[in-house]
Amino acid sequence: MSDKTKKKPQKLKARLPRGFVDREAHDIRAVNEMTAKIREVYERYGFDPVETPLFEYTDALGKFLPDSDRPNEGVFSLQDDDDQWMSLRYDLTAPLARHVAENFNEIQLPYRTYRAGYVFRNEKPGPGRFRQFMQFDADTVGAPGVQADAEMCMMMADTMEALGIARGDYVIRVNNRKVLDGVMEAIGLGGEDNAGQRLNVLRAIDKLDKFGPDGVKLLLGEGRKDESGDFTKGAGLNGEQIEKVLFFVGIEDYAKSAEALASLVAGTAKGGEGVEELNMIGSLAVSAGYDATRIKIDPSVVRGLEYYTGPVFEAELLFDVTNEKGEKVVFGSVGGGGRYDGLVSRFMGQPVPATGFSIGVSRLMTALKNLGKLGADEVVAPVLITVMDGDVDSMGRYQRFTQALRAEGIRAEMYQGNWKKFGNQLKYADRRDCPIAIIQGGDEREKGVVQLKDLIEGKRLSGEIEDNAAWREARVAQVEVAEADLVAKVREILEAHAEDRRRAP
Amino acid sequence: MSDKTKKKPQKLKARLPRGFVDREAHDIRAVNEMTAKIREVYERYGFDPVETPLFEYTDALGKFLPDSDRPNEGVFSLQDDDDQWMSLRYDLTAPLARHVAENFNEIQLPYRTYRAGYVFRNEKPGPGRFRQFMQFDADTVGAPGVQADAEMCMMMADTMEALGIARGDYVIRVNNRKVLDGVMEAIGLGGEDNAGQRLNVLRAIDKLDKFGPDGVKLLLGEGRKDESGDFTKGAGLNGEQIEKVLFFVGIEDYAKSAEALASLVAGTAKGGEGVEELNMIGSLAVSAGYDATRIKIDPSVVRGLEYYTGPVFEAELLFDVTNEKGEKVVFGSVGGGGRYDGLVSRFMGQPVPATGFSIGVSRLMTALKNLGKLGADEVVAPVLITVMDGDVDSMGRYQRFTQALRAEGIRAEMYQGNWKKFGNQLKYADRRDCPIAIIQGGDEREKGVVQLKDLIEGKRLSGEIEDNAAWREARVAQVEVAEADLVAKVREILEAHAEDRRRAP
Repeated sequence: MSDKTKKKPQKLKARLPRGFVDREAHDIRAVNEMTAKIREVYERYGFDPVETPLFEYTDALGKFLPDSDRPNEGVFSLQDDDDQWMSLRYDLTAPLARHVAENFNEIQLPYRTYRAGYVFRNEKPGPGRFRQFMQFDADTVGAPGVQADAEMCMMMADTMEALGIARGDYVIRVNNRKVLDGVMEAIGLGGEDNAGQRLNVLRAIDKLDKFGPDGVKLLLGEGRKDESGDFTKGAGLNGEQIEKVLFFVGIEDYAKSAEALASLVAGTAKGGEGVEELNMIGSLAVSAGYDATRIKIDPSVVRGLEYYTGPVFEAELLFDVTNEKGEKVVFGSVGGGGRYDGLVSRFMGQPVPATGFSIGVSRLMTALKNLGKLGADEVVAPVLITVMDGDVDSMGRYQRFTQALRAEGIRAEMYQGNWKKFGNQLKYADRRDCPIAIIQGGDEREKGVVQLKDLIEGKRLSGEIEDNAAWREARVAQVEVAEADLVAKVREILEAHAEDRRRAP
Repeated sequence: MSDKTKKKPQKLKARLPRGFVDREAHDIRAVNEMTAKIREVYERYGFDPVETPLFEYTDALGKFLPDSDRPNEGVFSLQDDDDQWMSLRYDLTAPLARHVAENFNEIQLPYRTYRAGYVFRNEKPGPGRFRQFMQFDADTVGAPGVQADAEMCMMMADTMEALGIARGDYVIRVNNRKVLDGVMEAIGLGGEDNAGQRLNVLRAIDKLDKFGPDGVKLLLGEGRKDESGDFTKGAGLNGEQIEKVLFFVGIEDYAKSAEALASLVAGTAKGGEGVEELNMIGSLAVSAGYDATRIKIDPSVVRGLEYYTGPVFEAELLFDVTNEKGEKVVFGSVGGGGRYDGLVSRFMGQPVPATGFSIGVSRLMTALKNLGKLGADEVVAPVLITVMDGDVDSMGRYQRFTQALRAEGIRAEMYQGNWKKFGNQLKYADRRDCPIAIIQGGDEREKGVVQLKDLIEGKRLSGEIEDNAAWREARVAQVEVAEADLVAKVREILEAHAEDRRRAP
């Protein structure tokens, strides 16, 4: 290192922490619009909001991170000054379980609640993979029957439609962990000893979308070599075992295959029960008017989380999008959930059955943007009151114009930058998309008038009039009104703009 | 420790981390109602939302905690896997400064933004003192003139009124750090060497509300002994110095004292400039229609944060509340802010003037609850569809009733607990304040009808009819309707309830 480098004072560098993002106005408004619609559906279903803080004691979170063999890796943790470890929540389910257990005597079961909030994953950040993101969950705690799971699925279907996603463009897929476990047992992978092996099989199944049945077959057997030559070791099943698993996950028409599935899992501890539960969910959905194009029993659904104990579900969007490689792909999952009968009872001396659903807010927002379903309430930029003179009298007058507009509900601001360069003020108005600029110099002040520049009409005209000098001379889209008529005239111009937007193709 | 205790398996205990709270439905709805109103005002003033993540690199946060001599104490920090220290934000201003500096080339100045979000303080928790709480901020970055500070004060006054706080029940107090510094310089406490001493004086002044002028006089001098006999060492000023400080913070009518103040700070580096700025803010406020009962120049305002460089302001609620000791006290501050010209430029090679305001959301919510200004949109609990039979057909029918109500926008839920004890279902409906219970057993099913129990009318009547048997016999507030009329009848009863609520005193 040279002396020069050493002596250079270290300047504080403004940088986002790795894996985190700032959110701009457009995204914030889109998420607000979206979450308001989701909330409306959840409220209609009889759910009430409840929220927990961002921290939990680490032991209360458990070791339930998806695909994590490494306990508590993947979590942001720190030690409190009384030496207890705390972690930022990585989902909204584990904290809800803690909340219910802690307040069990005051809570009226079944307990139907929803919440939106940030969760954190301490993972290597990557493209589109963030360490802070928002989930929107609904849960029913103290609900033993699968009618509660069926309701979750219906609510998700209704949510998709409330967001403007057309019937046929989404499906809620349903499977059951008991059936999955039954299949495992049927192929000789039951019991504690085979837990690791079962997880390998689940992970292979979870790749069905990505690699198709042939790829999964390899992953269930010896292993699979990808295009780059990298080899993923397989689960090491034999031919007969693989065939049974592939039959199970390959079921397309559940109604036709239900019997064969029942006989596959016959004699297992809970397989038959699981099939019955799936049948019941299917029946309840149909009798409430949700056919298999909306709520579909689909044995390929796995859901990574280890805490699920019964039905699991996934909300999938079926329309095509172009991925970063330029390929057309199905948009895919925007949320999921399932039954977690063991999560609350970890804290309790009694069983507390529960089921829930979680929406990935950013991912769903991306989907809705793709569909053009967000931004209906486009926000108009403020009217700009320009500053021509900086004395206290003039400023007071500009401020008064501004307040008069605001008092009538019109977005307005007085220019707050360095007012001495007037060109900068108009440049600001232009970049900010201000619809109108209001100008009052000494001459106008004496006459008690203001100039109103219609910036939107002005932009249109300036495109039509080629000669800049001619445009200035024409003073197009500029009108002089008495101070007393300012608000009315601004309103008139804004209404004309709104009418133009409505008429725009 | 006995053997028995040792062998007892350690049960996982459900407990909130110290200093954190869960939020219940009522509070969440109240905050949503409140923040929506604040947002509406900020939008009208031409501010747009921008949000930053909860983490920042620790060095980007700086050492700006209020009253903190201990750098970075008071902050939750952890080390990323690349060894960089990250901290949870302790306010929303330092992250905004980072955001602006990082995106300086893309940002259009003046940059007018707002944001609501959680902030964290790693402090000893106490009653009403939480380690996670919400702030709602607005900032104008790139605004050199005090007209931007004046606008902040007007916006806060408008916000208070939009929330239903009557004129006269709030005041926005304004002071100026330059004047404070000028007074310090005038009493011989200028310069770097006296920074610590100045801080002591500021802290003493900040206690004016708590201890009155006599208490502050002691704190400015030798020190003060409190009721319990504890002694707080004073700033050690002499009589003349104390007199000047007390004159300054004791100014009640700024207009009358402005001249005396100007001569007190005459000859100091920035004191005169500060007085001029205060005068200008006062003038701008008055000419926009905000008199001194709404925006008041008040030299006793200090604001703890060290990063303020010019005007500082505080929103105070003036009505009385009863504190935990049973004493009547003025409610006090619900937010504040000021000019922080140095905060963005820490990252930059150029000055970036800025001003902002921060509302303490929980505290303001407490105030509004005290005033009865929240909960206007009281949410009605869902209609309960009870479960009499658990077969798939019956469940399907109950589910269909439920969906039919929801489809008409009526909050409804099917009972999701163990349905076999019917009494539990009605108890649930009662505790949850369900307005109506819907019942269909075998008899009703055959006739194609349902029973509707008006639970609110029922509660009223059961208060009037003393004899429980007579009540059951009368089957009051229960009506039988054809399945096809279910939705219409529910709507009719709910409308009657709404009418009753409107008429209630």
